[in-house]
Amino acid sequence: MIKISIIGSGNVAQHLITTFLHLEELSNDVALIQVFSRKKENLSQLLSPQKIVTEFNNLLEADLYIIAVSDDAIENVSAQLPFRNRLVVHTSGSVPVTQLNSNNRRGVFYPLQTFTKGKTISFRNIPICLEAENTFDYQVLNKVARLISDKVYAINSEQRKALHVAAVFVNNFTNHLYAIGNEICIENQIPFDILKPLMQETADKVMTILPNEAQTGPAVRNDKKTIAAHEAFLINNENQLKLYKTLTQSIQHNGKKL
Amino acid sequence: MIKISIIGSGNVAQHLITTFLHLEELSNDVALIQVFSRKKENLSQLLSPQKIVTEFNNLLEADLYIIAVSDDAIENVSAQLPFRNRLVVHTSGSVPVTQLNSNNRRGVFYPLQTFTKGKTISFRNIPICLEAENTFDYQVLNKVARLISDKVYAINSEQRKALHVAAVFVNNFTNHLYAIGNEICIENQIPFDILKPLMQETADKVMTILPNEAQTGPAVRNDKKTIAAHEAFLINNENQLKLYKTLTQSIQHNGKKL
Repeated sequence: MIKISIIGSGNVAQHLITTFLHLEELSNDVALIQVFSRKKENLSQLLSPQKIVTEFNNLLEADLYIIAVSDDAIENVSAQLPFRNRLVVHTSGSVPVTQLNSNNRRGVFYPLQTFTKGKTISFRNIPICLEAENTFDYQVLNKVARLISDKVYAINSEQRKALHVAAVFVNNFTNHLYAIGNEICIENQIPFDILKPLMQETADKVMTILPNEAQTGPAVRNDKKTIAAHEAFLINNENQLKLYKTLTQSIQHNGKKL
Repeated sequence: MIKISIIGSGNVAQHLITTFLHLEELSNDVALIQVFSRKKENLSQLLSPQKIVTEFNNLLEADLYIIAVSDDAIENVSAQLPFRNRLVVHTSGSVPVTQLNSNNRRGVFYPLQTFTKGKTISFRNIPICLEAENTFDYQVLNKVARLISDKVYAINSEQRKALHVAAVFVNNFTNHLYAIGNEICIENQIPFDILKPLMQETADKVMTILPNEAQTGPAVRNDKKTIAAHEAFLINNENQLKLYKTLTQSIQHNGKKL
């Protein structure tokens, strides 16, 4: 049995806690023995108070410590752990494994997904990107990851940096384009609901077709008449117009490379 | 029974043909009496050759003619129809109803979706945006649209122009961000599959939460350190860097408006 402690009480920590507690009920492969949280009440809905510790000194020996705190706090938290040579990982897409304190054996357990407070989401479909400094530690992480997810990948710190940037494009920036779509709807008294099936199909399509092959629209067709009409429509909104021009140019730039 | 003729053999035409033929089997509300296509063989997989006409003069009297051709061809095709005062609509998001020839009663039957050749998609979930010049014609369009879709909207030409621009943002531009994500993966030997669950959840999230509320990431947090690290990572790809900066600025611009 792999004994796990989680450090943190935010979105990712809470999703991991729920998942490990559920797993405990089904098998003896893992045990979530403790969770560290500055404030017990943050987690009182999720697990019994005896399992919550508020002081690092009260952390028991575990096989794996998962630090699930904000990026900025990882270095400091890992330096405060009052033990040595144990396996300590963080869950961040953008922090190199070397930011963890070298007192312990270091690794990364990065679930690549957008977590919403209160929205349950199955870990089975969430890719988990693993990194460790030696083979034995990697095997521990791999065993834990495969218990909760069907999609486990070995990703080093350099690749993880790239993946995090790619995730910003397909998640943060895509969501912003949805926000622009909503803004245009509001400005023209159109219900945003009209766009929703299109948004879902746009995502569904690239599950089976490469995005470059799925590209449609005036930019990739170089349909100058429609592009000019759209730019004229956006003329009074400097921000929307700048986005439209930049994205259109980028599509045409990519088209040329093919 | 409403008698329908479709003019065109492209993606939208083929999806409409399949849908109306299926509907014919279930009810007597509509009949697809003819399809016009310059080349019979384009449609030979879909319907019996007797229903396909290659000359406008062979078009029989119908209650509704649906012109589903490319935007540029709509005006010309509608001018060639050898009859008067019948209901003729086009299926385009970006062409005003007035580009249809005024010899006939004009309207729009615009299914807002991205159609892929060979990929079947149920019309029930596709919003259909209707416009007509009089109430009687609107009722005909509304009856036909409701037979195939649960989502029917009255959208005038000005609103449709806005909707088409919004669709470019949430479909064409979003797909391009997927392409950039794929490009970054390829450049760093990362399987694109890792990003797919994130892409789907990003779309799923805004089915129930407004995009502005769903926005996460370094731009909306104004996390200057992460933004600087991402820009440094993209320094050798001018196009990716320009997109990153423009979208980050736009997210921060939108944040300020809230």
